[in-house]
Order: sequence, then structure tokens, then C-alpha cells
Amino acid sequence: MGKSKDWLRGLSLMILSASLYGPLRAQETQASNMETAMRGLNLMPVPANVQVGSGSLKIDAGFTVAFTGHADPRLTGAAERFVERLSKQTGLLIAVKPAGGAKATLAVRVDHDSKPVQELGEDESYVLEVTPNGATITAPNDLGALHGLQTFLQLVSVSPDGFAAPAVIIKDTPRFPWRGLMIDTARHFIPLDVLRRNIDGMEAVKMNVFHWHLSENQGFRVESRKFPKLQQMGSDGLYYTQDEIRGLIAYARERGIRVVPEFDLPGHSTAWFVGHPEFASGPGPFTIERKWGIFDPAFDPTNEKVYKFLDEFIGEMAKLFPDHFFHVGGDEVNGKAWDANPKIQEFIRAHDLKGNAGLQLYFNKKLQGIVSKHGKSMVGWDEVLDPTLPKDIVIQSWRGQASLAEAAKQGYRGILSNGYYLDLGWSAARHYAVDPMGDAAAGLSAEEKQRILGGESCMWSEYVNAENIDSRIWPRNAAIAERLWSPQEVRDSASMYARMHVISAQLEWLGLTHENYSARMLRRIAGPASADEFRALRTLAEVVEPVKDYTREQTASEPPTSETPLNRVVDAIPLESRAAREFGEMVDKYVASSCHDGGLGTQIRAQLILWRDNDAKLQPLEQRSFLVKEVAATSQDLAAVASAGLAALDALEHGGITDEAWKAQQSAVVQQAEKPKGQLLLMPAPAIQKLIDAATVGGSCAMASQ
Amino acid sequence: MGKSKDWLRGLSLMILSASLYGPLRAQETQASNMETAMRGLNLMPVPANVQVGSGSLKIDAGFTVAFTGHADPRLTGAAERFVERLSKQTGLLIAVKPAGGAKATLAVRVDHDSKPVQELGEDESYVLEVTPNGATITAPNDLGALHGLQTFLQLVSVSPDGFAAPAVIIKDTPRFPWRGLMIDTARHFIPLDVLRRNIDGMEAVKMNVFHWHLSENQGFRVESRKFPKLQQMGSDGLYYTQDEIRGLIAYARERGIRVVPEFDLPGHSTAWFVGHPEFASGPGPFTIERKWGIFDPAFDPTNEKVYKFLDEFIGEMAKLFPDHFFHVGGDEVNGKAWDANPKIQEFIRAHDLKGNAGLQLYFNKKLQGIVSKHGKSMVGWDEVLDPTLPKDIVIQSWRGQASLAEAAKQGYRGILSNGYYLDLGWSAARHYAVDPMGDAAAGLSAEEKQRILGGESCMWSEYVNAENIDSRIWPRNAAIAERLWSPQEVRDSASMYARMHVISAQLEWLGLTHENYSARMLRRIAGPASADEFRALRTLAEVVEPVKDYTREQTASEPPTSETPLNRVVDAIPLESRAAREFGEMVDKYVASSCHDGGLGTQIRAQLILWRDNDAKLQPLEQRSFLVKEVAATSQDLAAVASAGLAALDALEHGGITDEAWKAQQSAVVQQAEKPKGQLLLMPAPAIQKLIDAATVGGSCAMASQ
Repeated sequence: MGKSKDWLRGLSLMILSASLYGPLRAQETQASNMETAMRGLNLMPVPANVQVGSGSLKIDAGFTVAFTGHADPRLTGAAERFVERLSKQTGLLIAVKPAGGAKATLAVRVDHDSKPVQELGEDESYVLEVTPNGATITAPNDLGALHGLQTFLQLVSVSPDGFAAPAVIIKDTPRFPWRGLMIDTARHFIPLDVLRRNIDGMEAVKMNVFHWHLSENQGFRVESRKFPKLQQMGSDGLYYTQDEIRGLIAYARERGIRVVPEFDLPGHSTAWFVGHPEFASGPGPFTIERKWGIFDPAFDPTNEKVYKFLDEFIGEMAKLFPDHFFHVGGDEVNGKAWDANPKIQEFIRAHDLKGNAGLQLYFNKKLQGIVSKHGKSMVGWDEVLDPTLPKDIVIQSWRGQASLAEAAKQGYRGILSNGYYLDLGWSAARHYAVDPMGDAAAGLSAEEKQRILGGESCMWSEYVNAENIDSRIWPRNAAIAERLWSPQEVRDSASMYARMHVISAQLEWLGLTHENYSARMLRRIAGPASADEFRALRTLAEVVEPVKDYTREQTASEPPTSETPLNRVVDAIPLESRAAREFGEMVDKYVASSCHDGGLGTQIRAQLILWRDNDAKLQPLEQRSFLVKEVAATSQDLAAVASAGLAALDALEHGGITDEAWKAQQSAVVQQAEKPKGQLLLMPAPAIQKLIDAATVGGSCAMASQ
Repeated sequence: MGKSKDWLRGLSLMILSASLYGPLRAQETQASNMETAMRGLNLMPVPANVQVGSGSLKIDAGFTVAFTGHADPRLTGAAERFVERLSKQTGLLIAVKPAGGAKATLAVRVDHDSKPVQELGEDESYVLEVTPNGATITAPNDLGALHGLQTFLQLVSVSPDGFAAPAVIIKDTPRFPWRGLMIDTARHFIPLDVLRRNIDGMEAVKMNVFHWHLSENQGFRVESRKFPKLQQMGSDGLYYTQDEIRGLIAYARERGIRVVPEFDLPGHSTAWFVGHPEFASGPGPFTIERKWGIFDPAFDPTNEKVYKFLDEFIGEMAKLFPDHFFHVGGDEVNGKAWDANPKIQEFIRAHDLKGNAGLQLYFNKKLQGIVSKHGKSMVGWDEVLDPTLPKDIVIQSWRGQASLAEAAKQGYRGILSNGYYLDLGWSAARHYAVDPMGDAAAGLSAEEKQRILGGESCMWSEYVNAENIDSRIWPRNAAIAERLWSPQEVRDSASMYARMHVISAQLEWLGLTHENYSARMLRRIAGPASADEFRALRTLAEVVEPVKDYTREQTASEPPTSETPLNRVVDAIPLESRAAREFGEMVDKYVASSCHDGGLGTQIRAQLILWRDNDAKLQPLEQRSFLVKEVAATSQDLAAVASAGLAALDALEHGGITDEAWKAQQSAVVQQAEKPKGQLLLMPAPAIQKLIDAATVGGSCAMASQ
């Protein structure tokens, strides 16, 4: 199918990208050897600076790692995890053994301490040198060493002579100091072991902030010892104890990752009021919200007891979470509870506040004072931005680079999340194209740009649970991680995809389930099935994607809630179809060859025949399983568009077709198939439209293909 | 591919089997409805008695389970596990909630206590009744209830209207009281979490004895507090602490499973002597054995200190392991250490023992006395059998039914393991055909037959580790479990396979990795690969099996050891190829139709084309990975036999072929491919030979196919 060539092309593009930014130019004379040398060099994120050497370091059971220089206790655990990971990755029995620094296969030297509580902007750089005789990592502190170890693991791969890491000199440092993943553990509770393996994944792609979204209308997820009714009444028993939280923070710290908690205030707060209705703007009683959306309940900013409560609560949490940053949410307050309360409206008038926005600003200022009193800098979503707030607050933008740029101009630091919402089902390429310094931010002064700290991908959890959350985060999160670490010039999406697929497989060694969960869920959907029937379900599942953005909510037959089962095909498929993307690339190449590339034509035909014939194989399952029945229409669409594609290929083989009615007819089939059904999108449809266009008069291939 | 029909056939055969033994006859008039009614009824092991009703019980989020009657604490945990499992199996959010016995969806009633320490022969029966309005399980004690819950879980499946369990009355009781799985945790150490998930698997298929093989030449795996040098020097640090062992025993008990420890004596004992050379027959020092095979070191039966040691050691272990049975091994003593020690030979003469065998009997008698003194009954492999030993010992036969029958005649109880060695790579059907009452045992008297307690599958661990052990045990172990539970007449292997594939998928919900491990290992073997290249590797992997019996050891290029990596293709593939078996069935049917079934012919052709073209797709990987290169010859063989098969199909379409030279030539290709390469067998080869035979003069289809 020519994929092997594609893959090489991806690698060579990566080298070209890498060579755009600096010392690699010196290496360009070696370019002819590079393609060979870089084989198997699938790094993600791409380092700031790579020089490829010759030869490789063999990895066998005698492998040792040793640490010299400053001995940070974090490195002991890192060494054990590194060796375990290397063993898994190679299937070799590599033991953790003491080794003299000089004699070790991999010698790691760290110069000095990192901060006891990890800080924003600490040096994370490292130099990794691999030669056929051994490897070294040198780093100012253990943070860089941790990153270097991950880079080394990505270098190791199977080779013609055993497992090996290619000779290379890597000088690496991140572009942005804040590279985060937010997980919403409130709408659906996410168990600790799932969080831990995702933190392992973050370490692998060098992310350094776990933003823990802990409260919502649908759940309050932290044990408060001062206000136990919060979790006792607001969580259905699904919350993290303080011991568990301390454990997770330690776990993250071991991996060079800060933990920033978020308690969303004053909106998004129904669950707080189940136990404490006295702090709400409206009358109780309250129950945990089960539906999705924006809801009315909000704290009462006019109630002084609210601030006393928040002072005590934030005081407790500020001790529990050691990070300097404390996120207070601040988004999506609809103001209805305030509108409905005459006392609150009276307060607005009496204090000459600018309506509800002014009231929220009043609240934010008092909140900021509390956060600051407990030694923290406040982080909030776009809405908290106001020039009257102190400059140490950080704005997290869900709206876009424009509000980030605005904040930077006003002197505030910011992080970008707009464009990085993992739940919207965008392709990795689309996320990858979003740059914190792009759009409005591109015009900032150098000083203002300094205030843009980085970004965070966001995993909102309306449609994820422990079973499928990994697949909604990975592998696309690796593309965002690269955006935030690698030089801005690294932006070739073909290279990104080639490397992402390799890294994706490696991430499963960490216990992440994003690749293998799908088969298990599809088995449940299929029920008892023959091998052929199940294969038909997989074939269909591989070419569909869930509807994008917020369409799922908008097209649900009944309003989805936190109790709605997530066991449908739409839940069991990756958010991005690799098969459809690769088919699209194949069609693009074929059309670009003026449809002369017969090899590609044959491959396209084989794929289309398989798709055309798939529906018949799936039909018995549709009769037996309501969950398969739901995708019957999409399965028929796949057969239909495949037939249309085959008709287009046939036409091309006869020099194209001049019958406009034929084109209209085939295009109508594709258009029908492009309408979502069962909340699924049939992804190969646009590529098949290209074949139809190419085949018809005026198309790029008609009359040219003979 | 007609698989869907096969599957139905499997089910109807199952019903026929079931109807052979009792009250189901009354149901035979309903036979025409049965095929429909039994859809989705994939029980394994087949119950003793099944009556299919009409309709089904809907399973939704409101599902509740309640216990009435005698309240065994074991049932509380069982209820939680049951609900968790049901949630996983359906993707529904089913909560553990209290429910009045009468109102619950599933009401479980238990009459009386089971024994505090589970005993051989306790009543394990239960009755499960499912109606559209609810379900009940009644059982004399909680063991039956545990089994009934597992049967219920197997009944639940996706249906046209949601998840459901079909209406049914099941009266069930096991055929044999001893249904075991032995895991050798000594040659390769197997971590506790792996043991736990395998015990979960045992519960799912109603096995009730975990035989824990704990000591070997290659390792001593138990913490002894009296003799800590045993584990400290004999285990490389890989052993189970006493707390861990108590935890696992409790875990097994919760699931109705006894734990029988085995300490192999007086041979298989090198690891003991690393810390305690003073008990060996030959001079020390000793080191942990790394190689596989039978080794010389053995305890010195003439040394009274040995018995003092064993008395103390077994006393300690008898307290740790509460089960009434205590396994002392006793197998494969080669006598060389005894031959080489003049003092021992002198002892044999002085005591008028019959050579080394007599010496071992002398040892066994003293050992039996010690085991008995500590309140246990001794279990040993065939070799311990001697009519002078007391009748409470149990013989485990690795040699076959003949020695089992011999033991039974002499008044000894026995369990069969010959025919159930999972490491030999036999097909599930071959294991399934072995019956403890078969062959020599068939001629026993009723009283003697009572002494045959059941059987045990054995997972010897030369070529398994934590990564691939599940795949060596499952799903084939489910077939053995059925042999030991279900009535003897249940023996249709087509039905067994149909159900085994369904159960296999369900077992993965327990955390077993037998289905998903292969893709992960193959990814490591492939290294960075395009989707097409990786698919080619999987296609090859799906039609090969490791060489059988002890061939792997015999054909290794260098002697394998406990340190040899298990990361090759031979380690990454299931022991039985489903694809090859199903292809063989298709060819059999095609030939049986006198090659007239054009639909089958088309399917066979499509499969052969895919195999023929696979090698070209795999070649790039062979260049990049030494682990793929190892299977290059097998990949070429697959292409070659597929071409031969296609030639045979072509010949058939032209009415057969009379050219004997042609037949010889094609057959030579198949014969060449049948020679193992890379320790792999190419499984579709025999079916392709059948096509060649059918196509040629004198064959069943030549001249008949037009």
C-alpha cells in the first residue's frame, strides 16, 4: 500500500523540520546518510536540537544505568521505572543493578537540586549523547534527567541485530514552561489508577502540569475534613481522600509533574450546595446535577459567610496541594440565580457594581485575596480577566489566542486551552496546528510573549469514563505535548502522524488502554459472533468517528446524563480514524498522479471492495444486537459510498465519464452518507467524492487516465 | 464464511448433548424452538441439566441482587464482584444496592454453612432459574451459589432489545470434585496479580483447586521464617511472602477455590540446596539452576537431619496452607546423586532397599509420616505410588489413565494431568478429548471409579512469564474445565469451540490478557511499522503455532535458560491458531461438497490470495527487525502453500488435473512448508494438501467439480 514509503517520508520530513532551527544545519552535509540513520528515531516531542551520529548502542540484558553528581531521591525511583520500562519495551530481562558511573551503559549526571516543590519555569533542559559505546545524560537538575530518560526510551527500538538506540546528540529544552493536561474528574469520576497511568503518559511526552478539575455541578470529588458534607453529600461516595490526593501528588512529582487543583467558583457549583445550601444564591434544597450543560446555581457573592467558608476551605486545600498555583474556575456563570434574588440585585445597586459581571468581579477580587492570603497565585478561565486584579493571576483561555493576547497586553500571564479540547473529537492535525503564539498572539511584543506560559489540553468528561478515557486523551495528546515542547517550526503533520503512531504503541506499555480498549468494547457490542462477523464490525468501526464538537449533546434522542451508559459504538471507537485518514492520503496521491499510478489504483480498489462487501457480513449481528443495529444505516452508507467509489474507478479506467447525471447521482450517494447517523461520521466519504470528481468531465483525471 | 451457521450448529449440538443425560428429554418436543431460544446461551462448562424456557430477563441499570437464607460472609464479596462484573460486561452503571430478597432481580438463597476450610467433595450444586420477571439461585451452601452466579453472568448477553438473560432452568452439579489448575511459579516467577486474575478465570469456569507449584531446581518461591536461607538464597529475591500467600489463599477461598501447595521432593530441588547444601546427596556448593531439564541434585534420604528439617519446614507450611492436601512432588528423580555417593549406596545395601527406587520409597514413607503428623494428606506424582503407603495419599498422574487406574485398583485416589499439560501446545480439542475415566480407567469398577477425583491442567513455566502466561492457559483451560465439570457425554468439539470463543472474550473482563497480549508483543517485534506492514505480521502470526510437546527445547540453537528472553514470534502467538482451524473446516466442507459449493470456493480463494500476497508486505519489516527476520522463511512458506492451493483451485475449476507430476510438485511445496522453521508450525498446510489431493486424479473432486 506504499505505507512503508510514507513512513520514511514522515521521518525525512521530521529531519527537515528539525534542521530548520539551528545547529542541525551543520549536519546537512550528511543528509544523504540521515534517512538511513534516522530510521527508528521516532521522538515525540521533537527535541530542540538533534545531531545524528553513526552506528548504534546495543541494548541487551547487561544494560546498566548509573547516576552521578547531585543525588536527588527522585532519581532512584526514576531509575527503577526506567529499567522496568526498558524491560517491557524489549522483552529483555534487565535488572536494576548498581553500576559505577563511568562503567554504566547509560550514565546520568545531575548538577544540582531541583526545588522541593516544583516551580513554574525551573530549568528542564538536558543533553543526551548516545554512541555505540555508551550513553550519557547531563542535566542541571533532575527534571532534565527525567526528560532525558524518556527520550532515551523513545530511541530504543528493534533493529536488524537486536534492540538498539541510534548514535545521536540531543540538546533539548522546552519551548513553554507550562505544558498541561486537564482531566475533569467531576462530571464522571475517574479512578486513581486511571489518573496514574495518564500521568505516566504525560511524563512520556514531557508534559509537566496535571490540572485536576475537582468540582462541578455533577460532583464534588475531594475529601474536606473541615467541611465533610461537601464530599459526603456531593459525590455519590465517589471522591478522593486526602491521603489518595497526597499520593497522587507525590506520584506526579516523581515524574516531574506539578499538580494544580481546580475548584470551580462561583458557578459550576451545584454539588457544593447539596451539603451546604446556605452558600447558594437561590433557595435549596439542591441535588447533584445529572444532566450536562450550564446550570443556574451559583455562590452568593453578597454573603459574607461565603468568604469565611472559602477562606477556611481554600486554607485547607492550599495545604493539601503544594503547588503555587490554585485554580478557581470562574467560567460560565449565567447569572440567573443572581437575577432571581432581589437581595443580590439590591447589593449590586448599593455597591454600584456593573451588573452580574461586576458582581462576579467583586467576588473574584475577594477570592483572589483569599487565595493570595494562603500563599498561592490564582488561575482562572478567561472570564476572570479584569485589569483591576493583581498581575500575579494567570488566565487560562478557553476562548482563544485573542483573549490570551489581551491578557498579555494587560500584563497578565496566560495559558492556552482553546484548540486543545480533547473531548471535541478534532483530529490530531487540527490540534497540532493550534499554537499559543498564533493568531492574535503573534503580534505581541517580546515582553508580552514572555507572559504566554504555554497551554493545556482539556479532557472534559461528559462522554468518558474509566473505560474509554485513555482513548479520548491518547494518542492525540502527544501532538499537543509536542506543540508545547518543540520549536514552533516543528509543524509538519505527516511527520507528526508517523511518529504519533509509534509513540501510541509505546504508551500502551505504561498500562494505558487507548489502543486495546476498542476491541473489548466492540466484543460487548457484538455479543457472541463469528470471527467474520466481528471482523465486519471492526472494519466499520475503523472508518467512523463520533460527531464533533457539541453535536453529540445536540443530537441525542433523550438528554444524556451522568447515568447514561457509555457502551455504544460511538463510545467504542477512537476519535480519529487512522484507516480513513490513510485512505484519504492514498486517494490524494492517486489523483495527484493524474490517476496514472496503477499500483495505488489497485490498492484503492481492494479497499473499496472490502468496504462494499462489509455490510452483508455485518447484517446477522444487526439482527442480534441492539447496539449493532444502531450502526446499520452507517454500514449501508459505507457499502454505498464504496460502490460509488468503485464506479468512479471503473469510469477512470475508461478514460473518465462525461455524463453529468452520473456524477450527480454518485455525489448524492456520498452526500447522503455524509449525514451523521447513530452520532457517527463516515470518514472515507470525502475521499470518495474526490474520486468521483476526478472521474468526471472537468475533473483532474477524466480523459487523462488512459 | 458460514461461521454464523456453524455457531448455531454448535449450539444445537450442545443442546443435543445436554439432552442425553436426563430430564431434558421432556423438552425435546420443543426442539424446533430451541435453536432460537438457545441463541446467546453460551455456557461453559455445560451444566448437568438445562431446560430452556421462553422469553428473557432484561438486564438494566436497575438490576439488583439479594441474598436470603444462610448468610455466609463469602457472599458479600461475591455480590460486589458479581455486580462489578455485570457492569463491565454490559457497560451499564449497576450499583450494589440493598434489596429485599423477594424484590431483587436476582434472589440467591443458600441453605447452610460451607466448611471453614473448603473440603474436597463439598456439595457444589445449585439451581438457577431465570424467567422474564426475575431470577433465583438456590444452593445448599455458598459454593453452589458462587457457581450459579458465574452461570448467570454467562447467560447475560446483548440482544435485539438490550442486555438480557434467556429464560432457563439449570440444575447443575459437577462430575468430579477435584478440578484444578497447576501453575509452576518456580521456573519462572509469576507475580501475584497474574495469579489473582487466573484464579478469577478459574472461578468463571468453575475450577476449584489452585495447585501452586512452589519449588524447583530453578527457584524456591516461599518465605520460610524458620529457614529463611531457602528463599533468600534460592529465589533471586523472587518469592511470595507469607502475608502474600495468606492473601492469595483468602482470595481463592472467596472464589470457592482450594489452594494446594507443592514442594517437590526429593528431586527438582537444586534451589533448596543453595542455602542448605547440607541436605543434598552430593557435595556443594550449589547455585540456582538456569537451564531446563532433569537435574541430579536430590535430598539425601539417608540423612536423619533431612527429616528433622522437613518436619519443621512442613510443619511451618502446613500452618500457612490450610488445605487438607499437601503435595510433595516426588517425580523425576534420576538417582545420579545417589549413585555417586558411596554412603548412600551403602545405606541401600544395609537396609536391603530395592535400589534407588527403594530408597525413594523409604524417603516417601518417612515423608508421608511427616505430612500426616501435621494433619495433611499427601499428594504426589505417579512415582510415589506404592502399595505399602497408606490409602489416604492421592496420586497425580502425569503418565496417563493407566497409572491412575492402577492406583484406583490398589485403593488410592487419583487425579489426572496427563493430557492436560497446557505447555505442550495441544489444541483445545485434543485436551477436551482426554477423559479421566477414559482408556484404562473405563474398565474400573464403580467403587474404583469413585477414587478418581478429577484432574488438573498443568502450566509448566519454561516458556511463560507474566507477559504471556495467560495466553498459554486461556482459553484452552476452559475446555479442560468443562471436561471435569460437565457430564461425560458432553464432548462435541465443534460446540466446545463455538462456546470457548465466546467465553474467551468474557474472560478478558477479568483482567486476563490472553487475547490482547499478542498485538502488544507483535508491535515490539515489528518496531515502527506502517499499518500495512503490521497487518502482514499479524496475518502471519495468526496462522502459525509454536512447535509442540518438547520440540522447542530440542530444536533450540542454544540451550534455553530462565534468562532467555521470551520476546520472539513463537512467544507472541496463541498456542492454537483459530484462523487455521477455521480454514481447515472450510476446506473440509468444500471437499465434502465435492467441490461444488462455489461460495466456499470463493472464500477459500480470497483467503489464499491474501496469504499468497502477505510475504511481499512483510519483507520491509524483515529487513528492519531481527525478530521478524526469524520468521521470514515461514512467511515465504505461507506464500508458497497459498500459491499451491490457488493452483489446486484453478485445476478444480477445470475439472481436475491428471498430471501426477503436478501433484508431486505441489505436494513437495506443502511438505517443505510443514517443516518447522523458527520453531513455528505453518498450520494451514494440511488443508492445502487436501485441496491438492482433491484436485488430482483419484481425488474426491477431480472431474466432479464441473
